[in-house]
Amino acid sequence: MSGTKAPLRLAIAGLGTVGAGVLRLLTENRDLIEARAGRAIAVTAVSARDRSRDRGVDLSAYAWHDDMAELAARDDIDVVVELVGGADGPALALARQALGAGKGFVTANKAMIAHHGQELAQAAEEHGAALRFEAAVAGGIPVLKGVREGAAANAIDRVYGILNGTCNYILTAMESTGADFGETLAEAQAKGFAEADPAFDIDGVDAAHKLAILAALSFGAEIDFGSVEIEGIRRVCAADIAQADALGYVVRLIGVADIEQSENGPRLLQRVRPCLVAKDHPLAPIDGPTNAVVAEGNFSGRLLFQGAGAGDGPTASAVVADLIDLARGDTGAPFSVPAAQLVAMPKADSGARESRSYIRFMVADRPGVLAEITAAMRDAGVSIQSLIQEGEANGTEGVLVAMVTHTGPVRCVRDAVAMLEGSESLVDEPLVMPILRS
Amino acid sequence: MSGTKAPLRLAIAGLGTVGAGVLRLLTENRDLIEARAGRAIAVTAVSARDRSRDRGVDLSAYAWHDDMAELAARDDIDVVVELVGGADGPALALARQALGAGKGFVTANKAMIAHHGQELAQAAEEHGAALRFEAAVAGGIPVLKGVREGAAANAIDRVYGILNGTCNYILTAMESTGADFGETLAEAQAKGFAEADPAFDIDGVDAAHKLAILAALSFGAEIDFGSVEIEGIRRVCAADIAQADALGYVVRLIGVADIEQSENGPRLLQRVRPCLVAKDHPLAPIDGPTNAVVAEGNFSGRLLFQGAGAGDGPTASAVVADLIDLARGDTGAPFSVPAAQLVAMPKADSGARESRSYIRFMVADRPGVLAEITAAMRDAGVSIQSLIQEGEANGTEGVLVAMVTHTGPVRCVRDAVAMLEGSESLVDEPLVMPILRS
Repeated sequence: MSGTKAPLRLAIAGLGTVGAGVLRLLTENRDLIEARAGRAIAVTAVSARDRSRDRGVDLSAYAWHDDMAELAARDDIDVVVELVGGADGPALALARQALGAGKGFVTANKAMIAHHGQELAQAAEEHGAALRFEAAVAGGIPVLKGVREGAAANAIDRVYGILNGTCNYILTAMESTGADFGETLAEAQAKGFAEADPAFDIDGVDAAHKLAILAALSFGAEIDFGSVEIEGIRRVCAADIAQADALGYVVRLIGVADIEQSENGPRLLQRVRPCLVAKDHPLAPIDGPTNAVVAEGNFSGRLLFQGAGAGDGPTASAVVADLIDLARGDTGAPFSVPAAQLVAMPKADSGARESRSYIRFMVADRPGVLAEITAAMRDAGVSIQSLIQEGEANGTEGVLVAMVTHTGPVRCVRDAVAMLEGSESLVDEPLVMPILRS
Repeated sequence: MSGTKAPLRLAIAGLGTVGAGVLRLLTENRDLIEARAGRAIAVTAVSARDRSRDRGVDLSAYAWHDDMAELAARDDIDVVVELVGGADGPALALARQALGAGKGFVTANKAMIAHHGQELAQAAEEHGAALRFEAAVAGGIPVLKGVREGAAANAIDRVYGILNGTCNYILTAMESTGADFGETLAEAQAKGFAEADPAFDIDGVDAAHKLAILAALSFGAEIDFGSVEIEGIRRVCAADIAQADALGYVVRLIGVADIEQSENGPRLLQRVRPCLVAKDHPLAPIDGPTNAVVAEGNFSGRLLFQGAGAGDGPTASAVVADLIDLARGDTGAPFSVPAAQLVAMPKADSGARESRSYIRFMVADRPGVLAEITAAMRDAGVSIQSLIQEGEANGTEGVLVAMVTHTGPVRCVRDAVAMLEGSESLVDEPLVMPILRS
C-alpha cells in the first residue's frame, strides 16, 4: 500500500528543541512511519525566528519563511505543525489561518488549546480540517488518544494526575534529599528540569492548562480554563514532606477534574494543588519528571497512562503520532464529540466537597497557641484526626503544628483558617493540602 | 452530526459474562457512544449456546441464532463481534466467514489471534474489512491502540508487562500473606480470581498469547506464538518471595518481547516467566488482578499502560472502543502495517542473553552440598553475587539455598543447573528466575 498514496505535506512553525526533534524523528524513523501511515510524511516548508542557528538538523531541503503566517497560505502543504507556543499572538493567528484554509493543524501548544480550543475545534469542523494536540498534554504519553478513543465507550466522571514534570521533579527531589523548596528549585534549574522563569510550572498554570483540555475531552464539556482552581508548590516545605511521610503519604502536585450531577445538569470542578497521596496509590511511586494520568470509566474502571511528560523526543513522538493519524485519514472531532455538542458546565462549589485535609501551621512558641488553633477548628466544625507539634522552635520560623482532619466539607477548613487570619500566634500563613481520594 | 448516519449494525456471538457486559454497556452508555461514534451502534442479531439462560439483559429485540455461523451470512449486519473463545473451531470459522463476506470483525479472543492473527489480518485486508482485537490483550487497557497509534512514530525494541491478572493476584497475595502457592491458588479460585481449571493462566499460556500479539504489533513482526518461551508460576514458593523481598525485589509473572539486530535482519525473543522485579521499578507496585504494559519507543521513552486486565466491564469497554473506531471509519491495518509487510523474524537465542538471575535450590541438610553447588557454578562460568542458606531444614522439603548471580549469559546458568541434575544433594529441581532489567 505504502508509496502509492501522495505524501502528507507539512509546514512546521517553530524550530526550537521540539521542532528540531520532530524533524529528527521524521528523518530517523522515516521508513516505519511511511509503513504505518500508509504514505510518506514530508516536510515542505519551515519557519522560525533565526535561520542561522545550528539545530543539528539539515534545513536545506525545506522552503524557509521568516514570517510563519505565510505557511498557511502555501497551496503545497496539507498540515501546519505549530511548535511556537503562547496562548495568543502568532500561534493563534496561524491556527485560525490554517484551519480556515481547510488545512490540518497539529500543535503542542497547551496554553492556546486551553484558552481557544473551543473556537479552534469549531473552525476545524466548519472547514473539514483536522485539529490534533496530543503533545499538549503529558508530553509523549498518548493520553488524549487513550481517553478520546481507548476509553470512548465509557462515561468518565473523574480524571486526574501528575501533569507537570518540573513540580514532580522538585517534590520527589525534596522527598529524597530532605532539602527545602528554594534550594531544590535552584538545583532543578541547574539540571534543566526547571525553566529560568519557573512560575508557569511551579505555580500550577501549566498543569491547569493540561487539566482543562483533559476535562473537556473526558466529560464532553466546553473547555473552561478560567474555572480551574490553582495552587502551586512554592509553599510546600521540607517539614511538610517529612510529616506526610510519617503519616504514610507523599506530596504530589495533582490536577483533578470531575463532574457532579445537579438539578440543572452536570457541574464541573477542576483543581490543581499539592495533595497528600497515600503511598499505596498508583500515583505515589511516580517520581522525577514523569507524568501520569488516571481516567475512571464506568465500565473500564481505573486506567492509568504513564511516561515522559516533556522533552524533545517524547513531545516529538506525540506530534508525529497525530500526523500519522491524519495521514491515515483519522479526522474525527478534536474533543471526541462535535464542538457544538460540548456542554457548557457551570463550576461546582469546591467548598461543598468532602475531603480529609492536611493543615500545617507555623506558630509562635508560647502558651495558648494550640488552644487558639483547636478552638478555631471546633468553631468551624472541623474534626481533627491527628495532630503533631514539633518540640522545638527552629530559629525565626516558629514551631510546626501539623494536623490531619477527618472527612468533612472543605469549606469548614477554609472557615477555620480564615478565623485564624491575622492571629499573632501564627508566624506564617497556614498551608492546606487535601488528601487525595483513592 | 449524530443521527444522520446509518447505525453500525452488530451481530454478537457468545453471551457469557463479556457478551452480556457488551450488551449492558451499549444500552447504558448509548447516548455518549452515539455522540462519540457519530452514529448509533445497534445490535441486530445474537447467538449463544443457551437461549433460556438469564443473563440480566433483555434479548427480545435481537434476532436469535442457535448456530453462530449464520450471523456472518446476514446481510443486515456490518460487524460480527466474537466473544466465544477458543483458538480454532467455531470462533475461527466465524472469523473467516465474516471477513470473507467483507464484514468487520471484533473479538476478545487472544488464543485465536495469537494462532491465526496473520491469516485473519490478510483476509481482512483482502476483503476491505476491519479486524480489531483490543480486548484480547490486557482487558480494558487500550494498550494495542497505545502501541499501534499512540506510539506509532517510534521504533519499539522492547515491550513487556504483567499480562495475566490471575498470576498477579496469586503472587501479590502470597507476598502479603506469606502463604504458599497451592493455598493461595485455592483462595483465588474461591474468590473468582482463578478458573476451576487454572492451567492456562498459571502456566503462562494466556500471558504468552497476549505477548505474541503485542510483539507483532510493536515490532511489525509476523505473529509467532510458537516461539514464545513459557514458564508459569506453579513452582514459586513462599520462601522465594521472602528471599526476593529481603534482596529488594518482588516476584511477578512478566512477559517480555524484544528484537535484536543480526546480520540477517532482526531476531525476535519472546519470554513469559516469573521474574524478580526491583521494588522501585514501575511494575513492582502493580498488585492484585491489575495488568500493566510497558513499551519502550526510541523517541517516546518508556510508556506504561495500566488497568483492569479482565472482567466483564473492562473487557466490554475494550470491545466497544473497537466498535466506535469502526463506526468512525477507522479501518487501518490490524497489525499497524499491512499483513504482507510484517517481517518473519527468527527466534533469538535466549541462552546468549546477559542477565542477572535468582537461583533457588532445595538441598539435603548434609556436608558438602554448598561446595557441590558452588563448584557447578564455577565450572559453568556463573559468578555469584550473593548467597543465602536458610539455617534450618523445615521438615521434608530440605534446606533452602538462594543465590543471585552477577550479570552473565543465561546459558551459563542453564549449564550449571544441568550439571547438578540428578545430584543427590538436591531434593527438588532448582528454580531460576531472571532479574528484570530496568
